[in-house]
Amino acid sequence: MARVVVNVMPKAEILDPQGQAVQRALGRIGVDGVADVRQGKRFELEVDDSVTDADVERMAEILLANTVIEDYVIVREEAK
Amino acid sequence: MARVVVNVMPKAEILDPQGQAVQRALGRIGVDGVADVRQGKRFELEVDDSVTDADVERMAEILLANTVIEDYVIVREEAK
Repeated sequence: MARVVVNVMPKAEILDPQGQAVQRALGRIGVDGVADVRQGKRFELEVDDSVTDADVERMAEILLANTVIEDYVIVREEAK
Repeated sequence: MARVVVNVMPKAEILDPQGQAVQRALGRIGVDGVADVRQGKRFELEVDDSVTDADVERMAEILLANTVIEDYVIVREEAK
């Protein structure tokens, strides 16, 4: 088995209201110096050797990311 | 400025309905071999040098993760 991580983030030009809400809240806990906050999704998949990079790409395109407003990055981690 | 990533995932023992929904959907797009899917949040913070690891820890504990049901990992990336 291997672990594949798919990170899905809003495209840079897309407004990120969740990230902005977090950034506004930072002031309330007295943390300065944070110029930007962006919030996205992280998927951790446990896959066997039959699952190819093309399979993961297809999963990301169809299920995990809305490619109109989101970008995704696939990271294949160590095989256990 | 540096980028700090905070990955927030459901604790292992916590039911992950979102991850299970994705896993069920995989069958519909003809992908087998995925033993488990877990869905969490990814935060990308652009911070200046005044923001310490302790500050980021505090942010994660108070704002970014619900530490009763979620774990978080902080990854400090290259300074730009």
